[in-house]
Amino acid sequence: MNTRLEKLMQWLQEKNTEAAFLTSTPSVFYMTNFHCEPHERLLGLFVFQEKEPMLICPKMEEGHARGAGWTHEIIGYTDTDNPWDMIAKAIKARGIDANAVAIEKEHLNVERYEHISQLFPKASFKPAEEKVRELRLIKDEKELAILRQAAAMADYAVEVGVNAIQENRSELEVLATIEHELKKKGIHKMSFDTMVLTGANSALPHGVPGANKMQRGDFVLFDLGVIIDGYCSDITRTVAFGEISDEQKRIYDTVLKGQLHAVESCKPGATFSEIDRAARSIIADAGYGDFFPHRLGHGLGISVHEYPDVKEGNNSPLREGMVFTIEPGIYVPNVGGVRIEDDVYITKDGVEILTKFPKELQFVK
Amino acid sequence: MNTRLEKLMQWLQEKNTEAAFLTSTPSVFYMTNFHCEPHERLLGLFVFQEKEPMLICPKMEEGHARGAGWTHEIIGYTDTDNPWDMIAKAIKARGIDANAVAIEKEHLNVERYEHISQLFPKASFKPAEEKVRELRLIKDEKELAILRQAAAMADYAVEVGVNAIQENRSELEVLATIEHELKKKGIHKMSFDTMVLTGANSALPHGVPGANKMQRGDFVLFDLGVIIDGYCSDITRTVAFGEISDEQKRIYDTVLKGQLHAVESCKPGATFSEIDRAARSIIADAGYGDFFPHRLGHGLGISVHEYPDVKEGNNSPLREGMVFTIEPGIYVPNVGGVRIEDDVYITKDGVEILTKFPKELQFVK
Repeated sequence: MNTRLEKLMQWLQEKNTEAAFLTSTPSVFYMTNFHCEPHERLLGLFVFQEKEPMLICPKMEEGHARGAGWTHEIIGYTDTDNPWDMIAKAIKARGIDANAVAIEKEHLNVERYEHISQLFPKASFKPAEEKVRELRLIKDEKELAILRQAAAMADYAVEVGVNAIQENRSELEVLATIEHELKKKGIHKMSFDTMVLTGANSALPHGVPGANKMQRGDFVLFDLGVIIDGYCSDITRTVAFGEISDEQKRIYDTVLKGQLHAVESCKPGATFSEIDRAARSIIADAGYGDFFPHRLGHGLGISVHEYPDVKEGNNSPLREGMVFTIEPGIYVPNVGGVRIEDDVYITKDGVEILTKFPKELQFVK
Repeated sequence: MNTRLEKLMQWLQEKNTEAAFLTSTPSVFYMTNFHCEPHERLLGLFVFQEKEPMLICPKMEEGHARGAGWTHEIIGYTDTDNPWDMIAKAIKARGIDANAVAIEKEHLNVERYEHISQLFPKASFKPAEEKVRELRLIKDEKELAILRQAAAMADYAVEVGVNAIQENRSELEVLATIEHELKKKGIHKMSFDTMVLTGANSALPHGVPGANKMQRGDFVLFDLGVIIDGYCSDITRTVAFGEISDEQKRIYDTVLKGQLHAVESCKPGATFSEIDRAARSIIADAGYGDFFPHRLGHGLGISVHEYPDVKEGNNSPLREGMVFTIEPGIYVPNVGGVRIEDDVYITKDGVEILTKFPKELQFVK
């Protein structure tokens, strides 16, 4: 039994909860090392206080699960099987009659919840996130090593992008160059849809890359990340193409100051609220408070956005082993947008910045 | 009020259901023309029998929603707002006290379901899928025109891939070439992770492309699709690199025969079961029944996998305007895998095949 499973089993015992049913791809991966994108099909992991855990997956994924090292029961179903009947049988064989079951409330859908409710008619349901998040929150040495690699590859991707900037090249062309070079390095999957935004489009916090052409005097914003061995990176850099205006420079300097201040504030014991404020107060003082409409950052790991929220109102303390992003931005319509984002790891007494691409304003000639 | 909203409002009246709450990106897009990937944030559309509908989205997406043509209320929330409080207020302002609410049971998660249950304490909840699927199932002329374009671009992508096959090139290199060429054509998003699989890897129904090198005597399998204007295509073609064995040829011929027979069987009134059997019986008769472990196909539209399932046991009749895939496959470990997939549109009296890349076995020199 691996340590992560053991910890979850122990939690079930402490909480008088007979079973946990995990259904999200990242949580199942975390617990089993088996990565499966089941699309609309059911993926699930049942963990009990003492009985053997069981994995539910499409039959054609069974080999992958074994290959990933899963040695316990697998319920593999075909497209014509009813997996719920198979689960009911396996639960019955274990003699489980639960009063409390932990489920991933932010993932499990209502249709499946109704099935689970029928399987355990007496049970109350509690959020499994409570424990799974806690486990996933603190990264171990092996996870950190992978996250460092993923961050280094994100740095490289930004470098490729910056070098690809040319007058009249479109956002999509630069984006294609980046992803092409990454595939040559063996990167198959990005953490999310790569963003290359320029001009007015950079002023949209969630702009979509398109045919907009690179023009001197504009910002070019890169927001991207890669997945390595199941772990994500997430970096944003904004560069100037040619000369830019004083207002654009002021915006850049403000974001950078805020970002650096937030990073410097990171250490065990500081709260997420404080980190957010460290950046936000600088941006507000410069008069751009209304143009920074999003949280400062988010947890990072198997999911590109995971627990915790790095934002005002989250008064939890930072702890050694956490990994999250710090990404303040200012978006001024018709002037341009700037965001600077790092992935950081909280050390025993401070912070290690995983993403290393320079943050001083770069001018592309 | 657009026609789709009107149809949903009429259904709510017929079903004595006071409200529908749609939360999936594809359904909200279908109803509003607003495409939003909210990640872990809340996206929602409330539709009522008569009162004004309302859209819930991150504040920074409001401009996109207006740009997409949404003229009704928007509840835009920031990362520090509680959207549920804002929704409660807007529901109260409309004086809605529902006895029945339709939700997307296959999408809405339990955490949000608990919020909705509190908003409507008296209500019973029914699947909104019942109506939304029915609406999305039958494609109109405008949708068909886009799906034709998306299919043509998928054909082009396969062509690029086939031309990129070279001895010792890896799957990922060929994949990178395909996606690079597509981005040059303005394609920003694939329907799903592109698959280029060769040799033993092609024998995995859901293999993952990697460093495997193209070698003469192997199959190369391409499974990919593009998104155009929010609609997906999905094609699979398998080609032979150099000479292949008699058994490989027999496998290819069997899949092709099955695929052609299934396509020929498509017409209004035939059932999905019959279509599945049309392919499966040929494959089983050739002795490969156990090596075809998945359903024949799936609905296609805004989602790459959508209602209906094209499989044994689905005895619903085909109807004019449906679009789905037909994709039998045979996967023999250590010999290779073949899958051939088309997107088809059901016409008044037959079928239009949207994907047109040749299906006769191609030999790449």
